[in-house]
Amino acid sequence: MLKIEEINAIRLNERIERLSMVGKIGETGISRLALSQEDHTAVNIVKGWMEEAGMSAKIDNFGNLIGIMLGENPELPKLMIGSHIDSQVYGGRYDGVTGVIAAIEVVQTMKEKGIVPDVSIEVAAFSDEVGCRFNKGVFGVRGIWGELEEGELDRKDSEGITRRKALIDFGCNPENFTASEYEKGTLGAFLELHIEQGPILDNTGSPVGIVSGISGPLWLTLELTGFAGHAGSVPMNMRQDALLGAAKVIVALNQVALQKPGTPTVATVGNIKVFPNSRNIVPEKVTLTIDLRDIDLARREQYDVQLRNEINRIAAIHGLTCKITEDMKSEPRYVANWLKEVLREESKELGLAAPELMSGPFHNSLIMSNYCDYAMIFIRSKDGISHNPLEFSSPEDIAAGTELLYRSALRVTKQLAQ
Amino acid sequence: MLKIEEINAIRLNERIERLSMVGKIGETGISRLALSQEDHTAVNIVKGWMEEAGMSAKIDNFGNLIGIMLGENPELPKLMIGSHIDSQVYGGRYDGVTGVIAAIEVVQTMKEKGIVPDVSIEVAAFSDEVGCRFNKGVFGVRGIWGELEEGELDRKDSEGITRRKALIDFGCNPENFTASEYEKGTLGAFLELHIEQGPILDNTGSPVGIVSGISGPLWLTLELTGFAGHAGSVPMNMRQDALLGAAKVIVALNQVALQKPGTPTVATVGNIKVFPNSRNIVPEKVTLTIDLRDIDLARREQYDVQLRNEINRIAAIHGLTCKITEDMKSEPRYVANWLKEVLREESKELGLAAPELMSGPFHNSLIMSNYCDYAMIFIRSKDGISHNPLEFSSPEDIAAGTELLYRSALRVTKQLAQ
Repeated sequence: MLKIEEINAIRLNERIERLSMVGKIGETGISRLALSQEDHTAVNIVKGWMEEAGMSAKIDNFGNLIGIMLGENPELPKLMIGSHIDSQVYGGRYDGVTGVIAAIEVVQTMKEKGIVPDVSIEVAAFSDEVGCRFNKGVFGVRGIWGELEEGELDRKDSEGITRRKALIDFGCNPENFTASEYEKGTLGAFLELHIEQGPILDNTGSPVGIVSGISGPLWLTLELTGFAGHAGSVPMNMRQDALLGAAKVIVALNQVALQKPGTPTVATVGNIKVFPNSRNIVPEKVTLTIDLRDIDLARREQYDVQLRNEINRIAAIHGLTCKITEDMKSEPRYVANWLKEVLREESKELGLAAPELMSGPFHNSLIMSNYCDYAMIFIRSKDGISHNPLEFSSPEDIAAGTELLYRSALRVTKQLAQ
Repeated sequence: MLKIEEINAIRLNERIERLSMVGKIGETGISRLALSQEDHTAVNIVKGWMEEAGMSAKIDNFGNLIGIMLGENPELPKLMIGSHIDSQVYGGRYDGVTGVIAAIEVVQTMKEKGIVPDVSIEVAAFSDEVGCRFNKGVFGVRGIWGELEEGELDRKDSEGITRRKALIDFGCNPENFTASEYEKGTLGAFLELHIEQGPILDNTGSPVGIVSGISGPLWLTLELTGFAGHAGSVPMNMRQDALLGAAKVIVALNQVALQKPGTPTVATVGNIKVFPNSRNIVPEKVTLTIDLRDIDLARREQYDVQLRNEINRIAAIHGLTCKITEDMKSEPRYVANWLKEVLREESKELGLAAPELMSGPFHNSLIMSNYCDYAMIFIRSKDGISHNPLEFSSPEDIAAGTELLYRSALRVTKQLAQ
């Protein structure tokens, strides 16, 4: 057993459990959509905990809940710690929440120990990280950096409610976003604790991991067009079977991603649409999505080229025309070395073998990485399950990660003041 | 140019054109569903042509239109010639129709030449060969042999009309099917002329082909189940990606079918369903259809075994469970050698290089093959297109095939009388 000597593990986990009652579905699930009534209830509960931890807290015009603990040098770039508390429509109780409650625990522990940090600490529960209500996420964190795009307020949820209306109902003033924006340089570092949402830590038996970066996803849509024909009468050598071509592309993508064993490249075809999709007709057209992620941008770009060559080769063999659309092309964002070093040393100090791993999913950190140094701690997810009511991280693992977060935050505030 | 010396090519093609006005859609399409008002109109027009050709004609209780020309020996097993005149909902003007009009042309030519055949000839336009209205076809031909299954009359079309009601509205008496049934031994041979519905004759530049058999389809449904996960966070070596497994099965099926170059085996995955089919989630479950056809039953069975082994191997590699359901397993039905010999010799006589080819699609002949010897003539389809308004067979090709049908029918009636 690790010695959790600083933070209050019981309070920490009780708060996570308390918050899981808001928007509860089934035994263990959560449905707490961004800017919903449930989200509002949850934000107010968390605000109370922030105040209990000695912070002054407010909800800004993006719906972000931000608490502030003043440090010895409030004029210096601050440390921000946080994550989100909104959930998927059919989600679990740990995604996001764990990071916000852990951040509050860090500040509350300092307060109880009479520690005034060298620089101020802000704790953030960012609005609509998840994105499933308006089909576009990391809203609040983009908001504070002036990164919102045109038309975002007019996006509607499934019931026709615009984000503008949802914000106003939440108590925000979308006419005055500038009052809630941050100036560049305000923050010196951002720390985010989050559940892994994948199986690596569970498989290596590690309660906690240190994130090396957030991999940049390349999202493509591939459209292959052949020629339909009767499945009984068109001979094999005369076919232009779009699904056979698509199948070869799926296999090729897999081979491209696996060519260097041990690398963290991931590649997925998650969505496929076939026309006419009829049992006895040779498929004429297939549309499929390609998701390729890698922490190494050069490698991802090399794989992208290889994949496109393979697609062209396969299309030529089967007499298919192909069209590739680029839907997203983000760069990998690496954590700051000095922050990772702090996490490494502190985990060693704690006796915590925290492996390094990359993050496939996005987080608020991805946006923050453009404005300050960042680092992330991952907590083991049982069976790697997330975005699902079955999501589970143990109270012990969460405590271990939070203890690491506390110790690291203390050091970071010191280093930010140097 | 071939010498079309016997039949009346102009009348033949004019009748096909005339019938294409009934249920016409667009410039060249036909929508003439079985037992519909349009079908009723068409059946009555064709009945008139049968009578003009010297036959007595009637619509039986299955909706079949059958004309009879008495031969010298009406007590001997008869020759039947025919096909169908119902169409797909979005079909062409040649599928089925060509064979019925050609059969009438055969009889009318004999009548005009004062020929009384050695045995009687029946011409049939079988009811609901297509099957798209009640989702089950070759209805009329199964009917005359007492092959209808329980509940067939209760099947409903998309507007909720039962087949029973449709039959009654058509003028049939579904309470008295037995009056329309045939005794085994009644027919000595069945000849069917049909458009190819595939590209082989078009590719080999042959107006006409001789069918060697109707391949037996094996229809399977495969269900592969893995485990969903975040496309960004589950490492490749921990995935149980059902779509990757499915893609490998599609490629494997193709390899199995292609292993013996030059054989007519065809294999198709036409329909696929993915769950959750979401861009950034590793697919958990895939259901797909497999269609494997071959004129050689032993080979098809060998391929079936190979395929199942491949499926099990792929499932094991990717940690998938698999379930295979057998939806259909028909035997290939070969044409009678003596009839094929007649077609071969007559086509040679005509100077018609008629290649042999197998039929992938079903026809009325498939059912007839269980009750008498059968043979089929295929007419070239432009670009192999069928079940589509773009379906096209040239008047010259249709005339050539009908000339071959006429000459062959004459010889067959002689041989049936020996």
